[in-house]
Amino acid sequence: MKTIFENVKILVEKGEGFEIVDGSIGIDGEKISFAGAAPEDVSGYQKIDGKGQLVMPGLINSHTHVYMTIFRNVADDLMFDDWLFGNILPREDKLLPGDSYWGTMLGIGEMLRSGTTAFLDMYIFTDENVQAAADSGIRAVMSRGLSGASDRDEGGERRLREATEEIKKWRAAAEGRLTFMLAPHAPYTCAPDYVEKVIGRARELGVGIHTHLAESRNEIKNIAEKYGCTPIEYMDRTGLFDLPTVAAHCVYLTDNDIDIFAAKGVSIATNPVSNLKLANGIAPVKKYLERGINVCLGTDGAASNNCLNMFRDLSFLTLLNKGLLEDPLAVSAEDGLKIATVNGAKALGLDDTGSIKAGNKADLIFIDLDRLNMFPHNNIISSLAYSANGSEVTRTIVNGKTLMENGELKTIDEERVRFEVARIADRINN
Amino acid sequence: MKTIFENVKILVEKGEGFEIVDGSIGIDGEKISFAGAAPEDVSGYQKIDGKGQLVMPGLINSHTHVYMTIFRNVADDLMFDDWLFGNILPREDKLLPGDSYWGTMLGIGEMLRSGTTAFLDMYIFTDENVQAAADSGIRAVMSRGLSGASDRDEGGERRLREATEEIKKWRAAAEGRLTFMLAPHAPYTCAPDYVEKVIGRARELGVGIHTHLAESRNEIKNIAEKYGCTPIEYMDRTGLFDLPTVAAHCVYLTDNDIDIFAAKGVSIATNPVSNLKLANGIAPVKKYLERGINVCLGTDGAASNNCLNMFRDLSFLTLLNKGLLEDPLAVSAEDGLKIATVNGAKALGLDDTGSIKAGNKADLIFIDLDRLNMFPHNNIISSLAYSANGSEVTRTIVNGKTLMENGELKTIDEERVRFEVARIADRINN
Repeated sequence: MKTIFENVKILVEKGEGFEIVDGSIGIDGEKISFAGAAPEDVSGYQKIDGKGQLVMPGLINSHTHVYMTIFRNVADDLMFDDWLFGNILPREDKLLPGDSYWGTMLGIGEMLRSGTTAFLDMYIFTDENVQAAADSGIRAVMSRGLSGASDRDEGGERRLREATEEIKKWRAAAEGRLTFMLAPHAPYTCAPDYVEKVIGRARELGVGIHTHLAESRNEIKNIAEKYGCTPIEYMDRTGLFDLPTVAAHCVYLTDNDIDIFAAKGVSIATNPVSNLKLANGIAPVKKYLERGINVCLGTDGAASNNCLNMFRDLSFLTLLNKGLLEDPLAVSAEDGLKIATVNGAKALGLDDTGSIKAGNKADLIFIDLDRLNMFPHNNIISSLAYSANGSEVTRTIVNGKTLMENGELKTIDEERVRFEVARIADRINN
Repeated sequence: MKTIFENVKILVEKGEGFEIVDGSIGIDGEKISFAGAAPEDVSGYQKIDGKGQLVMPGLINSHTHVYMTIFRNVADDLMFDDWLFGNILPREDKLLPGDSYWGTMLGIGEMLRSGTTAFLDMYIFTDENVQAAADSGIRAVMSRGLSGASDRDEGGERRLREATEEIKKWRAAAEGRLTFMLAPHAPYTCAPDYVEKVIGRARELGVGIHTHLAESRNEIKNIAEKYGCTPIEYMDRTGLFDLPTVAAHCVYLTDNDIDIFAAKGVSIATNPVSNLKLANGIAPVKKYLERGINVCLGTDGAASNNCLNMFRDLSFLTLLNKGLLEDPLAVSAEDGLKIATVNGAKALGLDDTGSIKAGNKADLIFIDLDRLNMFPHNNIISSLAYSANGSEVTRTIVNGKTLMENGELKTIDEERVRFEVARIADRINN
């Protein structure tokens, strides 16, 4: 199956930033076959006119908990303990097998509609989350959350076994769209010897690491009291960062923490909306970029955001750093776009995605530039960070397949998803 | 013309907050005739099924410069002087008569699509902005920006005369949808005796005041150096606050400034996105609310936002204060909704708008609750602040008339607006 979209504008990398090229983009099977000038012979290609559309790389949601979309808005404007112990955990207890599939499908549908083509997930229900990602056609890096009070903790051992079985079962499936990481949850839920056990397993499986670090002042305080170090130093001592690692949040890093991340090539997945919503603060992303750290962007789960719309997080990311540092140049639109695409691909180990060039996977989104909020076209790159809200996405292509077109999902039955999720919400709220 | 929307959910005020009521809402001419239970006799009403829709008051954009929508994205990621002197002012110089009409129409179209039913505008081109507001069917409080180096400044006198003529010409037109204020621009552009002159004129005309105050640290410093006081103290000395006043920005207020505002009943129009974008900082809205000040919400112009989407500013408003104060209760979803509706109506002197009750003007928006990002309905009030992005608005009614339905504008020719604005942008950018 070969398709050309003609008369489009295309967002391509140029030096440290991007430029907009007028032309065509060709897709051959799973891959981009050309971008810009079409080759002379395009026989065999189906032609589609894309006038008024910008084609750009799909956004990469580099930290989320998709099944938690079930819990959207259940516990807002509450103190953290009320949020977690009074609301989220009691509802998680009421979930039944299968529920997580529908929660994940709801979140994936929302992401496809708002321009996300790949995500890094952390969850507690094995298999059904992965099944949903497989069925939906999206690209995903899946990781089961792991916690353990010691290397002999039975629950910890069980979770690690389930994660291992899942990876072995799924890693060759779904046209290679699914890859895996192991996810030691956080320094406050994983003892050092348990982390070491996870590291050993990750080496055996050849997978990277997904974790939460330095999210809140409370965490910093508690780890300092217990171990006399920062959360980053704690994990560094276990050797975790010798594996490719994505560390979510990182709101509070010391200079030494940043040195460790820079030396070990750890990627930071920043979550600006979630950090505000849970009142944790604002991550100094400009500082991390200046130190050469690979920063990527995530929405976190819908229970703490409350949506999975990467365009929204992109605008918060770029605007917050300007306001925080009182510097309008702090994190530019181009910085933000790179963080939401190229850097995400690098962090997630999706080497042939995140940018538009021949040979890369066709993970693409189309933006309707005729929308009034995107008009006039004084600076299209700026408009993606500062004017778009995600509803301008008219087509989402993953691995060469159109999964959403003009608001219609091709692989997900929206009505069924709403029916199932409403049923689950009724049960867990009562 | 009488219409009932049946099977809807309705957002109504309850105590300090809101509740959701199931039922119907009736519109008779310009007004809401009932909300909740329908009266027994509804003969003469046209019935429309609204299943899956929430009806809420239209959002009130309490500070903007709509014609500047022409300048969207022209000057992003720049220092303030480059922004203003290198980019905005040279382009304003190239504007021709009529351009401002199309810029205003573009911004109004964007607002109607994203759920705004009324706005408070400040502009420099008289008449054509007002004509656009009149033609579009939206509700607007219009104010021509005024500056003057003294009470004998000829330019200042001319601007005040133009504003006066405009008010006399238009105040009885457009079914009463247009009201007016006078807009002494800011303490750094208006000398004390000029402000006093404006005050006198406002009294004669019976209109309120719209101004910018305490937007940046630079302004605070400059006014302190020149007058030995804060911008608020400066304006208070002129007697300005004896008139109903909307003060935009107010990022930096002293305790004494807050006391003055509380005593004089000045409304603050906070502009969270613009304040971040121009790197001015974050206004401590929670503090203002605690002191009983009427806080309302504005987008500011598209040159410093870069869109006129009140749902986006609503999410920034509620989330920023949580992150800034590290307090998840700082500004709740209900606080935010009140700021964006009821408080806006109060600030703008639109007493019979801003909330849903029989007898109020029918300024209403419909939200599609079936959108995946609004699902499930764990807490609809929360979802308006934390999950919506403005694209869920399926119908916008102003003064009883549907101006937007399913993305289609009824009174604005979108294609013509794009054509004219593209033409203007081409000219001023080259």
